[in-house]
Amino acid sequence: MGGSAQIGVSGLAVMGRNLARNFARQGYTVAVHNRTESRTKALVEEFGAEGEFIAAHTPQDLVTALERPRRVMIMVKAGAPTDAVIEEFAPLLEPGDMIIDGGNAHFLDTRRREKALREQGVHFVGAGVSGGEEGALNGPSIMPGGSAESYESLGPMLEKISAKAGDGSPCVTHIGTDGAGHFVKMVHNGIEYADMQLIGEAYQLLRDIGGRSPAEIAEIFRSWNTGRLDSYLIEITAEVLAHTDAATGAPFVDVVLDQAEQKGTGRWTVQIALDLGVPVSGIAEAVFARSLSGHADLRSAAEGLAGPRPTPLPKAEADAFAAKVEQALYASKIVSYTQGFHEMAAGAAEYDWHLDLGAISSIWRAGCIIRAAFLDRIRAAYDAKPDLPLLLADPGFAREIAAAQGDWRDVVATASLQGVPIPGFSAALAYYDALRSPRLPAALTQAQRDFFGAHTYRRTDREGSFHTLWSADRTETDA
Amino acid sequence: MGGSAQIGVSGLAVMGRNLARNFARQGYTVAVHNRTESRTKALVEEFGAEGEFIAAHTPQDLVTALERPRRVMIMVKAGAPTDAVIEEFAPLLEPGDMIIDGGNAHFLDTRRREKALREQGVHFVGAGVSGGEEGALNGPSIMPGGSAESYESLGPMLEKISAKAGDGSPCVTHIGTDGAGHFVKMVHNGIEYADMQLIGEAYQLLRDIGGRSPAEIAEIFRSWNTGRLDSYLIEITAEVLAHTDAATGAPFVDVVLDQAEQKGTGRWTVQIALDLGVPVSGIAEAVFARSLSGHADLRSAAEGLAGPRPTPLPKAEADAFAAKVEQALYASKIVSYTQGFHEMAAGAAEYDWHLDLGAISSIWRAGCIIRAAFLDRIRAAYDAKPDLPLLLADPGFAREIAAAQGDWRDVVATASLQGVPIPGFSAALAYYDALRSPRLPAALTQAQRDFFGAHTYRRTDREGSFHTLWSADRTETDA
Repeated sequence: MGGSAQIGVSGLAVMGRNLARNFARQGYTVAVHNRTESRTKALVEEFGAEGEFIAAHTPQDLVTALERPRRVMIMVKAGAPTDAVIEEFAPLLEPGDMIIDGGNAHFLDTRRREKALREQGVHFVGAGVSGGEEGALNGPSIMPGGSAESYESLGPMLEKISAKAGDGSPCVTHIGTDGAGHFVKMVHNGIEYADMQLIGEAYQLLRDIGGRSPAEIAEIFRSWNTGRLDSYLIEITAEVLAHTDAATGAPFVDVVLDQAEQKGTGRWTVQIALDLGVPVSGIAEAVFARSLSGHADLRSAAEGLAGPRPTPLPKAEADAFAAKVEQALYASKIVSYTQGFHEMAAGAAEYDWHLDLGAISSIWRAGCIIRAAFLDRIRAAYDAKPDLPLLLADPGFAREIAAAQGDWRDVVATASLQGVPIPGFSAALAYYDALRSPRLPAALTQAQRDFFGAHTYRRTDREGSFHTLWSADRTETDA
Repeated sequence: MGGSAQIGVSGLAVMGRNLARNFARQGYTVAVHNRTESRTKALVEEFGAEGEFIAAHTPQDLVTALERPRRVMIMVKAGAPTDAVIEEFAPLLEPGDMIIDGGNAHFLDTRRREKALREQGVHFVGAGVSGGEEGALNGPSIMPGGSAESYESLGPMLEKISAKAGDGSPCVTHIGTDGAGHFVKMVHNGIEYADMQLIGEAYQLLRDIGGRSPAEIAEIFRSWNTGRLDSYLIEITAEVLAHTDAATGAPFVDVVLDQAEQKGTGRWTVQIALDLGVPVSGIAEAVFARSLSGHADLRSAAEGLAGPRPTPLPKAEADAFAAKVEQALYASKIVSYTQGFHEMAAGAAEYDWHLDLGAISSIWRAGCIIRAAFLDRIRAAYDAKPDLPLLLADPGFAREIAAAQGDWRDVVATASLQGVPIPGFSAALAYYDALRSPRLPAALTQAQRDFFGAHTYRRTDREGSFHTLWSADRTETDA
């Protein structure tokens, strides 16, 4: 015996409410529950006409209302609140039932929770959901982890409510076991940080060196949005830059306090990359740029430090400069995605997931914040070579970087000389040049380590580990 | 009743053995213990003439041999082995006794252990010890945390065995409560990573653009070592670069495999900085550079990517270029230390430590890997202004950066145009320019966040939080 609802949603803040409505609009019967019952009532009263809702007063009511196997989606804050809600529902469920966590959990928490629930036969699906409120309602990009068995039951429903790419395919796929979904969502957000930072640097260059106004820069972004940079973030950048503040008549971007905030997934992306030994300098610089912007005390202490103020170019040269900035932005973007995809490959190896990187880029093509034409290119690169070790070495991307790199270097050099901060552009270029360097100063670093700490070194000409007796006669010994 | 030994050392691998010998040479009676007893015997047989040792067969023997309050120093591997040894000794100790962990523990572990032992009245002192084997024997820089009471008893002994700075003062001070010592040691190591990366970049520039041989570059580093860059790391760089490989007759640095390894404290420094909201881009780039160097598969995939190969300068210009590199290295070093000291200030605020940043720079002047004349300058900066928010804004450093920044920019621009990777130099410059920028593109970032996620923004012209109704009529609302 079971109820008639195909899915239950517990936690009806804006994301949970909109996902519940999305399921109902797609024809599912949705049991809804919220700790504070007024929200449940408000949802049914306001949107009851959109589909079939069953208002549940208690977790037990929600469970009773569900067909079997039961699917309980929890949409509460990450951390302790998520654990609390799981503890409420777990005892009410039976083997084969599912709990889906659609919040922004840390994937290590998801791994822990999945393992604990697996012991009682309950599937725990950590699902990254991207696209904000609007995506939740009209079609998000969804990154579910958990067992393959749970996806068989849940997948078709998620496919229905998900965003659809240009070719009609749903923006959801089974990412991998246990925490794979939340891990991939984390990296998605890290890439989003990098995208936003690079756009910010391009804007600053066009303004300070290109000498353009926000409205003029909006036009430049609009034109970029018709080319290879076509993406949601470029589109909304144009919207923001074109917007005028009603109160002052000034460009809106000029009245916004220049201190960017963050919630944590970008930081996690870098912290986990460090654990995995993956260089994600572009994402790190994006996270650092936000934290730096918020240190008003340091910025105030730095007022008056020496350095040039940028001189805008003559009008005649500004168009050519804008074209160079587009090249630099595009090349740096390829590097960011290369770093993010490297982190996913390293995560897959570490946690024994079989991540299909082509499929992942595919489900980011719609619904989520980083949706972009570019992702079709990435999918094609992985379709051509599923074990591609380095995204930017895909022949297509390599060709584009080859064409872009001269301008990219000019932009980095110009900004460095003129005092415009471009941490993202220059970190990306340094990464590119380091990768292609036949020799790195890492040899000197390792030799120093051997000198002061007897950490040993390897040689270029034969196998083995060696140590030089630096404080004795400097002969070499096998270590 | 108690024994006659003033200190016990458990764990007699090279660091423990050398610290025990150091104590004995300073006139202390040292009880020594090792799980595998042969090491205890070997120490007493080989070095027994250096002072008074008491060989302890068991932890109980060690404890019995100690005067009260007992001081037990444990020198074992970080992590589970440290917990295991603490569990062995803790039941044998009495209120007022001390356990000193001289390993490279994560400061969060130290906080946990200190709290647990405090409940039974035992002082737990997490002490960072820097200087490697040689420092342990002849005088390390020591960074002890823990209670003030424990330092009263332990401090004089640590002062005896520590390195002495040029002015004769011991390189040890009470850093702060619980995990403060290990936290500061962690940041020390992060700064060390950055120092080494910057030196590596300087070397690569002198080689690839300056056109100098390793032996010639050794001479340049020797000359730098007589100036403001005077430091242990610059000194050993010259030694390494001047060294010839006996087997091949080639410069030693050319036969060392260019893949640098790492043990974890650099990574921790960045991960904790991310938690604290502190931008440490220079340290992060150093950690990333090491991990990148080790990804042989990616580097191999990147072979043949487009880009310039550096052209060495004509001899006549090479000296002037070397002088510019010195400026760039020095300015970037000021930035690294600024970031590391910012992290210490932020850690102090987060964990309620009262870190004396001037005293900390003072105890790094000898014994440890980053020892340098430079640290006298930092001490002077904090002596002049103990609450200095930004080290590089100290008037002395600001003047030096003002003089250096033109050359620094030239070096970054030249390297970027010529394809020499300089992640550390360029990250440092971007940090400097971001701090002194009157406006940052963070305003655009925050506006984008408001657009896609209703994350709100603040305004430059009035208090409050605001949200623009982007998908409606774009009026502004109070949030």
